[in-house]
Amino acid sequence: MHLKKIVLNNFRNYCRAEVIFDPDLNIFIGDNAQGKTNLLEAIYYLAGGRSYRTNQEKEIIHWDQDSFILSAFFETIKGSYKLQVVNYLNGKKKVKINGIDYNNIKDYFKAVIFSPDDLNLVKGAPSQRRDFLDIEINQIFPLYSYNLQNFYKILRHRNKLLKLRVDNKKTEQSLQVWNEQLVKYGSFILKKRLEVINYLSGPANFIHRRLTDNRENLFLLYSSGLDLKIDHTIEEIKDIYTEELEKKREEEIRYGLTLLGPHRDDLKIFINNQLTRKYASQGQQRTCVLSLKLSVMELIKE
Amino acid sequence: MHLKKIVLNNFRNYCRAEVIFDPDLNIFIGDNAQGKTNLLEAIYYLAGGRSYRTNQEKEIIHWDQDSFILSAFFETIKGSYKLQVVNYLNGKKKVKINGIDYNNIKDYFKAVIFSPDDLNLVKGAPSQRRDFLDIEINQIFPLYSYNLQNFYKILRHRNKLLKLRVDNKKTEQSLQVWNEQLVKYGSFILKKRLEVINYLSGPANFIHRRLTDNRENLFLLYSSGLDLKIDHTIEEIKDIYTEELEKKREEEIRYGLTLLGPHRDDLKIFINNQLTRKYASQGQQRTCVLSLKLSVMELIKE
Repeated sequence: MHLKKIVLNNFRNYCRAEVIFDPDLNIFIGDNAQGKTNLLEAIYYLAGGRSYRTNQEKEIIHWDQDSFILSAFFETIKGSYKLQVVNYLNGKKKVKINGIDYNNIKDYFKAVIFSPDDLNLVKGAPSQRRDFLDIEINQIFPLYSYNLQNFYKILRHRNKLLKLRVDNKKTEQSLQVWNEQLVKYGSFILKKRLEVINYLSGPANFIHRRLTDNRENLFLLYSSGLDLKIDHTIEEIKDIYTEELEKKREEEIRYGLTLLGPHRDDLKIFINNQLTRKYASQGQQRTCVLSLKLSVMELIKE
Repeated sequence: MHLKKIVLNNFRNYCRAEVIFDPDLNIFIGDNAQGKTNLLEAIYYLAGGRSYRTNQEKEIIHWDQDSFILSAFFETIKGSYKLQVVNYLNGKKKVKINGIDYNNIKDYFKAVIFSPDDLNLVKGAPSQRRDFLDIEINQIFPLYSYNLQNFYKILRHRNKLLKLRVDNKKTEQSLQVWNEQLVKYGSFILKKRLEVINYLSGPANFIHRRLTDNRENLFLLYSSGLDLKIDHTIEEIKDIYTEELEKKREEEIRYGLTLLGPHRDDLKIFINNQLTRKYASQGQQRTCVLSLKLSVMELIKE
């Protein structure tokens, strides 16, 4: 794919800008606050329909305006396309492909970004590594986000129930119902995460070795409260999940919290058998994130 | 002050290393994971008796060893000193100045660090800005950490009481007792934070304007749940704090949480009237943190 041109209207600090790209390499140089990062954000937005910097899309709309418009002109082996996204202050979004209304922004255009914030992928809390997995898997399996949303909806309900601390008998009965749903969506997420980590491991290590003159090995491990193996089927994951939830029932009622599932897991990253979050140097952390991002790029290319 | 030499034993990736410094400028160049950042961490550790990278000091001790030893040789206008810190796996610490046991590592040696992690000062959660304030104020006012520790101890007790949800009458009675303590330590913290932000504002903006060719103004604001002014005395702060806690009593009991005090406040940083956390560019954020750090350095010099 070649992104030929992008047009920004009322996006961040841009009132209107048109940028034409070289097919190979593009470098942007400029003073602080001229909009270099904002341009990257715009490209990324066109790929996934979301910013990698904020959840509050109002912030992206240029001061005092009530919408932003982004247009991308690109070529794939299938032909030439114009993708346009309009985003309104009230959160509504309109997507068009070659002038025709279209409801899924994700199908045409994919992007992988490497920004200073990504270093949190190594150094930050488990939630940031879960976010990385979720965002990247979502680019590859469109059904993933559907399952993820449902999982978190069920999780909120289930936690509310656990927090209420009505009498234990009633709670246990309701839990049965919620568990079934939690396990259904949760197992899909777990399966996909295991799969994707398995896919990424090889290329990520290959790239990392190349970046470090073969001095370092990168190893990825999905660390779960459930005892999962990479070749477990979804059915097996469901069984394990259900069983473990039952074992944890008392503890969950005591803590008023759902203690098992994809919302508590972590992606553990090792360099030469040492956990990067604790022991990697600043430079190693940077290289490590770069290897991961490049391996995601390889996966998307496939 | 001139730090002439530092000796590291079993610190991070160093078994033993001796580094001699130039009085003016020192630049370290090397491959990833050779120990450049670890050396900075060692210097910082000698200044405050803590790492800026981890709370788990075990991680700092070289693999398989049971202690690390750091020694600094430095000169001030008062004379030449050797500062030695030994830190054991069990968390015990020994500090010596010129060979004599000494219990406060903080008096002799001060340091300000600017590392990639510091960008979280702008981008991160309010807790990271509170940490910045607390750590820097602690270098200037040794009593601050005593008050901070006590405040958080009281806060834990008070939150536990609020979470228990015993009958409201009893909770309210106990709250009276805890409030007095909370206000006592909390007001000291609030007063010092207001003072230090007031001290820093001028130099921080001066430095920031110099770094940006006068294009940007930096403005610091202490954002508190309490309506505080910079010239409030500690007594006035105590009165406001007590009064507001009483107003919040019902809400606190309902949420089971202490809703007012230094543990909920934030340092708001503005560049040209825009909140940096939301609107500053990557480069602006970097410059902004640098301005803050350099202004802390000025404050420590005084």
